Amino acid sequence: MTVLVLNGPNLNRLGTREPLIYGSQTYADLERLCRDTGDKLGLAVDVRQTNAEHEMLEWLHTAADDVDDVVLNAAAWTHTSVAIGDACAALTGRLIEVHISNVHKRETFRHHSYVSAHADGIIVGCGFDGYRLALEHLAAVPREN
Amino acid sequence: MTVLVLNGPNLNRLGTREPLIYGSQTYADLERLCRDTGDKLGLAVDVRQTNAEHEMLEWLHTAADDVDDVVLNAAAWTHTSVAIGDACAALTGRLIEVHISNVHKRETFRHHSYVSAHADGIIVGCGFDGYRLALEHLAAVPREN
Amino acid sequence: MTVLVLNGPNLNRLGTREPLIYGSQTYADLERLCRDTGDKLGLAVDVRQTNAEHEMLEWLHTAADDVDDVVLNAAAWTHTSVAIGDACAALTGRLIEVHISNVHKRETFRHHSYVSAHADGIIVGCGFDGYRLALEHLAAVPREN
Amino acid sequence: MTVLVLNGPNLNRLGTREPLIYGSQTYADLERLCRDTGDKLGLAVDVRQTNAEHEMLEWLHTAADDVDDVVLNAAAWTHTSVAIGDACAALTGRLIEVHISNVHKRETFRHHSYVSAHADGIIVGCGFDGYRLALEHLAAVPREN
Amino acid sequence: MTVLVLNGPNLNRLGTREPLIYGSQTYADLERLCRDTGDKLGLAVDVRQTNAEHEMLEWLHTAADDVDDVVLNAAAWTHTSVAIGDACAALTGRLIEVHISNVHKRETFRHHSYVSAHADGIIVGCGFDGYRLALEHLAAVPREN
Amino acid sequence: MTVLVLNGPNLNRLGTREPLIYGSQTYADLERLCRDTGDKLGLAVDVRQTNAEHEMLEWLHTAADDVDDVVLNAAAWTHTSVAIGDACAALTGRLIEVHISNVHKRETFRHHSYVSAHADGIIVGCGFDGYRLALEHLAAVPREN
Amino acid sequence: MTVLVLNGPNLNRLGTREPLIYGSQTYADLERLCRDTGDKLGLAVDVRQTNAEHEMLEWLHTAADDVDDVVLNAAAWTHTSVAIGDACAALTGRLIEVHISNVHKRETFRHHSYVSAHADGIIVGCGFDGYRLALEHLAAVPREN
Amino acid sequence: MTVLVLNGPNLNRLGTREPLIYGSQTYADLERLCRDTGDKLGLAVDVRQTNAEHEMLEWLHTAADDVDDVVLNAAAWTHTSVAIGDACAALTGRLIEVHISNVHKRETFRHHSYVSAHADGIIVGCGFDGYRLALEHLAAVPREN
Amino acid sequence: MTVLVLNGPNLNRLGTREPLIYGSQTYADLERLCRDTGDKLGLAVDVRQTNAEHEMLEWLHTAADDVDDVVLNAAAWTHTSVAIGDACAALTGRLIEVHISNVHKRETFRHHSYVSAHADGIIVGCGFDGYRLALEHLAAVPREN
Amino acid sequence: MTVLVLNGPNLNRLGTREPLIYGSQTYADLERLCRDTGDKLGLAVDVRQTNAEHEMLEWLHTAADDVDDVVLNAAAWTHTSVAIGDACAALTGRLIEVHISNVHKRETFRHHSYVSAHADGIIVGCGFDGYRLALEHLAAVPREN
Amino acid sequence: MTVLVLNGPNLNRLGTREPLIYGSQTYADLERLCRDTGDKLGLAVDVRQTNAEHEMLEWLHTAADDVDDVVLNAAAWTHTSVAIGDACAALTGRLIEVHISNVHKRETFRHHSYVSAHADGIIVGCGFDGYRLALEHLAAVPREN
Amino acid sequence: MTVLVLNGPNLNRLGTREPLIYGSQTYADLERLCRDTGDKLGLAVDVRQTNAEHEMLEWLHTAADDVDDVVLNAAAWTHTSVAIGDACAALTGRLIEVHISNVHKRETFRHHSYVSAHADGIIVGCGFDGYRLALEHLAAVPREN
Repeated sequence: MTVLVLNGPNLNRLGTREPLIYGSQTYADLERLCRDTGDKLGLAVDVRQTNAEHEMLEWLHTAADDVDDVVLNAAAWTHTSVAIGDACAALTGRLIEVHISNVHKRETFRHHSYVSAHADGIIVGCGFDGYRLALEHLAAVPREN
Repeated sequence: MTVLVLNGPNLNRLGTREPLIYGSQTYADLERLCRDTGDKLGLAVDVRQTNAEHEMLEWLHTAADDVDDVVLNAAAWTHTSVAIGDACAALTGRLIEVHISNVHKRETFRHHSYVSAHADGIIVGCGFDGYRLALEHLAAVPREN
Repeated sequence: MTVLVLNGPNLNRLGTREPLIYGSQTYADLERLCRDTGDKLGLAVDVRQTNAEHEMLEWLHTAADDVDDVVLNAAAWTHTSVAIGDACAALTGRLIEVHISNVHKRETFRHHSYVSAHADGIIVGCGFDGYRLALEHLAAVPREN
Repeated sequence: MTVLVLNGPNLNRLGTREPLIYGSQTYADLERLCRDTGDKLGLAVDVRQTNAEHEMLEWLHTAADDVDDVVLNAAAWTHTSVAIGDACAALTGRLIEVHISNVHKRETFRHHSYVSAHADGIIVGCGFDGYRLALEHLAAVPREN
Repeated sequence: MTVLVLNGPNLNRLGTREPLIYGSQTYADLERLCRDTGDKLGLAVDVRQTNAEHEMLEWLHTAADDVDDVVLNAAAWTHTSVAIGDACAALTGRLIEVHISNVHKRETFRHHSYVSAHADGIIVGCGFDGYRLALEHLAAVPREN
Repeated sequence: MTVLVLNGPNLNRLGTREPLIYGSQTYADLERLCRDTGDKLGLAVDVRQTNAEHEMLEWLHTAADDVDDVVLNAAAWTHTSVAIGDACAALTGRLIEVHISNVHKRETFRHHSYVSAHADGIIVGCGFDGYRLALEHLAAVPREN
Repeated sequence: MTVLVLNGPNLNRLGTREPLIYGSQTYADLERLCRDTGDKLGLAVDVRQTNAEHEMLEWLHTAADDVDDVVLNAAAWTHTSVAIGDACAALTGRLIEVHISNVHKRETFRHHSYVSAHADGIIVGCGFDGYRLALEHLAAVPREN
Repeated sequence: MTVLVLNGPNLNRLGTREPLIYGSQTYADLERLCRDTGDKLGLAVDVRQTNAEHEMLEWLHTAADDVDDVVLNAAAWTHTSVAIGDACAALTGRLIEVHISNVHKRETFRHHSYVSAHADGIIVGCGFDGYRLALEHLAAVPREN
Repeated sequence: MTVLVLNGPNLNRLGTREPLIYGSQTYADLERLCRDTGDKLGLAVDVRQTNAEHEMLEWLHTAADDVDDVVLNAAAWTHTSVAIGDACAALTGRLIEVHISNVHKRETFRHHSYVSAHADGIIVGCGFDGYRLALEHLAAVPREN
Repeated sequence: MTVLVLNGPNLNRLGTREPLIYGSQTYADLERLCRDTGDKLGLAVDVRQTNAEHEMLEWLHTAADDVDDVVLNAAAWTHTSVAIGDACAALTGRLIEVHISNVHKRETFRHHSYVSAHADGIIVGCGFDGYRLALEHLAAVPREN
Repeated sequence: MTVLVLNGPNLNRLGTREPLIYGSQTYADLERLCRDTGDKLGLAVDVRQTNAEHEMLEWLHTAADDVDDVVLNAAAWTHTSVAIGDACAALTGRLIEVHISNVHKRETFRHHSYVSAHADGIIVGCGFDGYRLALEHLAAVPREN
Repeated sequence: MTVLVLNGPNLNRLGTREPLIYGSQTYADLERLCRDTGDKLGLAVDVRQTNAEHEMLEWLHTAADDVDDVVLNAAAWTHTSVAIGDACAALTGRLIEVHISNVHKRETFRHHSYVSAHADGIIVGCGFDGYRLALEHLAAVPREN
């Protein structure tokens, strides 16, 4: 069993895009953080990013087939994609929703998430460290079923 | 002239995803039902599914060029994609909108459709049989122009 | 077991009223279509129309007692009558909601239905043929219980 | 050709009900005023009142068949009955909407009318004299077609 | 002086309709409860039910003429009928509004009542016993004027 | 005592502006109609038009000082000018609000009027004849105080 | 087992505060009425009032521990305190919500209650007698479990 | 420097209240978890609970004076208390908002937080483990100033 | 440096208009009060009133050029004029907004002000004395830059 | 007769909390200003602050009993506490509402006040000087009754 | 044929007012730019500014009579004046709406325009250069009729 | 430095799709117009169209890396794609938003743009000529930094 860490649109631009909001670390730093955390916790962690909704949907479909846990930062799609919400609803493992910035301090349209209704936990505004917390949580807490 | 039966995101997961809502039959069953119905009615039926919005748009563009009728289950995009609504507005054949489940019993955001404003008919909540009814309707009723 | 085809206010005026929206066929044509379809499918079909809400309520009460399936075009009451919605909630057979025109192309107040929350299937904008499809569906699909 | 003066629910109670809002004259006074005005103008005036929506609908259907002009005070139904709005939409003569009190000084739910979208003229808050004005207007202005 | 206990649409179906919401006792049980309570309290109690709005309006008109107190469960009309609200406004005795189920636990459209603005007291969610309480209240508290 | 017939912005353009909505008669025709009606009824009628809000306010102030009745078509200001509404509130004679077209068939922002809350009567959609009706009403009905 | 009659902010001021709304009887009168009613019905009745939300919360916690029934007039907190709503949700006995005045005739912000979603019965506008009715109801109807 | 872990109304009832939502562990378990985590991380952790808003305000004032970090589960006050939001705005250390259940799966009024606009991080739906994550985060990430 | 006291539409009518709301003192009384207060405080006070928005705009432009403080009662324009709000935004002295009556007790459309976003202080409902307080404040508090 | 100057939550933190909004003067400075103003005006001024709603309610109750005037800065409770609004409604002396900062330049939830509907005057955004103005006003203007 | 370049309230203050939003160039610079552009393109350009709505209305009336094209920056009136919208609707030449700043980055009330529904083209946020583009467009594109 | 002219979904269909709205010229005509304009102005212009959101995102990412100016017609995505809005926010050159038709004359959902908040200029309803104007503007106005 693997933990999929899935990242949505524009997150490949971390470190170049709006550093006041997202900090100056890059997406490569984020990948490394997740893999290192996985190593420390004994979790197989697979970190991916895509700007294509269909690719994200297919990753979520595979996770459902494989009963994998998912850490999902759907970025902008969080607020607009019913399709990703529907794919999350069909997951068979656990789902932790992560946002790097505190979306509740930003525009109103970022206050609603189509993912949250299907998430087990939600971690917001903790920066890159939010991904580490998500993995710690999945490692620490046993699956409910 | 062909009838295109076009299916949107996550519908390839039918039978695995949320059986309480969508039933236990699979997408392959749906394809077979549509093709069998087409055979019975003497209609050329072409059944497709995609998780990529651009693919759906291109299918709709082709349908417009070929003056094909379309049976469209846009799934989650129904509620979010102005682009698909715009492509439907440009169709030259007829358009029947289909939803497997009764979307009006579900979340409020599923009560609005960007497709309906451009549809000739809408069939909701009849399960897979809704596709059969759509094809029956296209076969039974003559084109208006 | 009978299928009741129940029609609400103003539908007796079909063919005379707003032909651009409802077409030029009359209510008598509609009755004949439903009865002929019933004959073809081996269903006992009872077609009625009323402009009185209390009569519609009593027909729905009887349908509930007799475990009849219902095809209901509640017309204007669709959008205003909680009483009819409540009577539909108490039906013991199946309920197919039908609208001749595509209500989603019309005024906003026609986009909400008090019937839909209690319907098994909904067929909109297919003209008179929508009634035929409703009967076809009831004949083709077995009752769930 | 007759002018139908049609009155909706509770208007038979004029003179007994809420005199601060509606004045102390009775429904019989209103009938007399309309008939006298008709006599003066050389119009056949038929004044009716009902508390049953189906009766009102049937009167409107007849008016449509007979190409009669209608003066309509739909009272409470003004704000709630799509069915009456639909029947008004199908009228073939002219329609003048009348309200005795100034509904725009009263509760917000009285500010919207399902009749107004189909009315040629609207006379509000002029008391019983509003009926006289409506008849004067129909007598003075030639039909457009 | 009589107390009229007036019941609106579908309430004749009590005991058969949605027992999870309304319980398994029948309308006949309700009539008996009201009459027995009246006997105990020395009140003339007249219990009626109708599915026709015009009949309800006429009962309310009579109550106003006779200066009777009214216990009213307008059921679905509570939320949609301005006409019944207007007739309540013209009552000359007291008005107690009753609902068997707790409407505030149900759909949002049941949270608004056109009756409440004209009621002296409102009793909700107490089941059939709410009718008894209403009668007890009318018997215990003297009329204000 | 005079009746002031006051017309707001753009009404000097009648006959040139949007004839589908306002008809082809000119503002001079309107003035003549009002004066002729006044002559017939024995009323001193003073017809004015302005595109300047301050001029309209000053006319309303004068009317208040002189206890004149006012027939007011505030045109576009109807929907936007609290100042004119406030000046109407201070009138000491009667106020009849007139609109040539049926504003309830037009854009939603024309459905609200800051004048109506202070009007005695409102006449809408009767064309130029609405002014005649307003004057007839003022002549026919005695002042209340 | 005791019935707790709990009263929220400002209710200690009854008789001095806004007599047009609440009547001229005092809080001491209310206490006496509840105790007398309890005596008559054989119920141990404990009547309390507080202006401190935390005290109310602690009384509700104790009621939950003791499986007591509660009659609650949360007064202003009804409309603003999610905390009290949450404490009501955790009650193990029955909950009857009482309001002395008819809150539905007052400001719109008084039409919503955080308590109602957790109440078994709601009695509004019956004055002090509403407390008596609540106690009568608890005495008359057996607990469901 | 201490980390204050502050808990709002009803949280002393954990383990007894709504176990389907909050689980069966008690408030004492939560205290122990926080203290054990603090010990492990070398943080002085002070865990408190109150049902009185003024006590919570005073704790937040002290934290601001002492430049302490705060982990805050304001429970019901999250959604209603501007006062607590204002006190959070004045904190001088960091603020992590925690909710045990996934508030975004619950009533709409729980989707808005007066705390979030002032929080550095937000952890929702991770059960008691959310407190551990909050402390881990404060220990792992250096203060920004 | 002068203090401009600027008054908007209808305020020249003070004392004649709606005395229940505005009191019986006249605009001349108001002018005198402001001038007398200025004399007492050693402020040059220039009191003006206009019913023409363009005149008010030009006074505000001059005030900006002259770095004058302004006391502004924009009356009805407060709620409708973005133009006056924009001119206030460009002021270079201080701005105190004054309303004679308590606008928050009146119609909802009077609760929003386009001026407030640009005001330094706001004084509402203190009658004519509010102008005196505004001048006292400007005299007592030093300019910030 | 005393003037009570009552201050709500967090105001004891003045001078430490958000100086950009509230300035750098402390609560002790505010107390002194009010007392000095009272001395100057010959008013007995009693200045208090509380973070506990029940304490504020009790002070308001006492003020009502003693027919004292009140200057109230309810701070955050202004926007959330119906209980304080209700206690203000029962005051027997005058009520001046004060806010130090201009709440209309801040978050939307600060634009509504439950106090304003019961206030005689409202002074906003004048800093500490607003309290002085309130006291000046009470001293200068005679009580109405 | 002339192109009228019409500017609304406060635009005479360009260069002095809010330079962060509108830049430091003056209204005289704007006039010169428009005239120079007209010369270059061979268009007769007439540039005007007014703070009086009635003057703007009269210029628009003249433009309609003369079949002139109009470049209109209605400034604050854009968002509030139905009268100017109505005058635009009656134009017989083309209408290009211009805004110097990007109104969609500013307050929400600047996002709606009563002019846009009647404009042929809209140019926003391009600074003074937007006027040049508008004139270039009118010169480059032939009139449609 | 290049100017990227980026076109969103369905724009490859220009000339075939809804000619009443978009005119009869084709996408190839548009490309030619942009290139010819670039040649005339001495700008390197790169014109692209895509129906795939991920392709658009990647083009915007490249533009940000290359500090290119962008002319963007995001078509339907304008109204729905937060992802494209986010990518625009990260641009390092200038951004001109273009729409061929006047979106403010069309459905309400086309009145909001996720692009506008990040655009320097917006040109709407000028047909293909809007692209030319955008390029003229970029060529004429120097970059700000």
